[in-house]
Amino acid sequence: MPLLIIGSIALDSIKTPFGEKKEILGGSAVYASVASSFFSPTALIGPVGKDFPPEHLDFLKARGIDLSALHRMEGPTFRWGGYYEYDMNQAHTLETKLNVLAQFDPKIPEALTASPYVFLANLDPELQLKIISQIKRPKMLAADTMNFWIESKRDVLHEVIKKVDFILMNDAEIRQFMETPNLPLAASRLLKLGCRGVIVKKGEHGALLFTQEEHFSAPSYPQEMLCDPTGAGDSFAGGFMGYLAKTNDLSPENIRKGVIIGSVMASFNVEDFSLDRLKRLKHKEIMQRFEEFRRFSRFEALLEEHAI
Amino acid sequence: MPLLIIGSIALDSIKTPFGEKKEILGGSAVYASVASSFFSPTALIGPVGKDFPPEHLDFLKARGIDLSALHRMEGPTFRWGGYYEYDMNQAHTLETKLNVLAQFDPKIPEALTASPYVFLANLDPELQLKIISQIKRPKMLAADTMNFWIESKRDVLHEVIKKVDFILMNDAEIRQFMETPNLPLAASRLLKLGCRGVIVKKGEHGALLFTQEEHFSAPSYPQEMLCDPTGAGDSFAGGFMGYLAKTNDLSPENIRKGVIIGSVMASFNVEDFSLDRLKRLKHKEIMQRFEEFRRFSRFEALLEEHAI
Repeated sequence: MPLLIIGSIALDSIKTPFGEKKEILGGSAVYASVASSFFSPTALIGPVGKDFPPEHLDFLKARGIDLSALHRMEGPTFRWGGYYEYDMNQAHTLETKLNVLAQFDPKIPEALTASPYVFLANLDPELQLKIISQIKRPKMLAADTMNFWIESKRDVLHEVIKKVDFILMNDAEIRQFMETPNLPLAASRLLKLGCRGVIVKKGEHGALLFTQEEHFSAPSYPQEMLCDPTGAGDSFAGGFMGYLAKTNDLSPENIRKGVIIGSVMASFNVEDFSLDRLKRLKHKEIMQRFEEFRRFSRFEALLEEHAI
Repeated sequence: MPLLIIGSIALDSIKTPFGEKKEILGGSAVYASVASSFFSPTALIGPVGKDFPPEHLDFLKARGIDLSALHRMEGPTFRWGGYYEYDMNQAHTLETKLNVLAQFDPKIPEALTASPYVFLANLDPELQLKIISQIKRPKMLAADTMNFWIESKRDVLHEVIKKVDFILMNDAEIRQFMETPNLPLAASRLLKLGCRGVIVKKGEHGALLFTQEEHFSAPSYPQEMLCDPTGAGDSFAGGFMGYLAKTNDLSPENIRKGVIIGSVMASFNVEDFSLDRLKRLKHKEIMQRFEEFRRFSRFEALLEEHAI
């Protein structure tokens, strides 16, 4: 399978200024694999409980996602409940019921261990290490994380970062992890830990890419319709990894395009609750929005005589 | 004179994590006109007191800035004292002594009333209206403001916005003024008030341009060396207006370049206290950093076959 994604599968209950939804499909690996499925065949590994609604599995299968290695476990599915204030910048957790996620012990079937692209969606970094130990060195291994692991398992997270090619964090997380408010400085410290690239997801302010060789600043999408930010970072990652797996081209130029594709997928994802916007998303819309990103961010070279 | 800039002239006392400086040159019109002087002949109007150090006037004159209409007033020069916390995102005011600024009643000499480019740097919006009433319709009239006027003179600020071509605000200000956390929505509301363009300065996150016709997202500079953010917005505005006055080209394409030039000047300005970085800035560095902005923000078009 070109792309393997491992992470959480959830039933979310979410309140935003635009409405309230109970027990809707969510989870880091779900958002990521639905986004990636627009570009590349994707296998999804994550734990579901006995109570996981079959229609969600049907939806994932209909998107061509390989569920053969799904971990079907006893007990109820992982639940997350939270809300967003008026400014939508931060998720406030009301309830976390780990349920089957607490016992999740990922086993990668032999057939999937040689996947050339692997994305470790947000998950306990100890499990991320377990996964890394089971797979053959992929062409591109990327991982996401969250503030909870930065606070509770900093050292384990260090180990993960040493072993991956790209680490994805949001701006608050990287500031916290590297203990500086300066994002370029934080990224440069993170690169010194040993990974090849750092992607800083800044929500409404776009995304930054830092590698050992270069820097790329991806513009923010002028998002007037922001309904629910849940899964924005995961759909970004899924778009990014799906595009790279599809094109199988890790040149700096193509990685930049991947960052824009990630931004495009996230910008769609936040327009509705759960996966609802991605469910009705068309490839043509992706192409159009990518071009829109180009249009609203490009500028010409300066004429020499103009600055002197 | 191609460009006229009216605003405050100050002696600032500033503390940042990188040091503390007393009674250094500052003021919205000073930052703006020093930045613009790299591109266009500029006339500066603002109030100075009896105690204003002559060496500052010598510096401004040496930059070719026309000080013939400076308002030399009785009493001490305007003073501002403030500090920045570790994250440098927000200025905290410790002391504001308006001094001669409280009596400032701008008179535009006949010779300057026909300046084709006019920038109203941050100032009481009632004074901004007084200035507008004295000048002939410029080719480009832009204004800046601050939270203090949004809170205390909202209606007068509305009048200013109706009369200018471009309004510049930072992200917090436009959110506050338009009463929404959503920046594109805030900009679209502001455009409806009657101005042609809105520039949102987002500090470390770059800048956004919204006009009736289009949107432009300018990248952030990866600023590892951020010493003192004072005057960043003013030097942005000065670079923007100076470049437009120099090129005398208000095409959308050239306005975008102006936004990048503004970003370039702001990115240099914050590297040292007061005007110290601009004092030693070379044209060649401006050209190089502009190219750097292009390099770290460009990406190629998507190949049709890649997204399907």
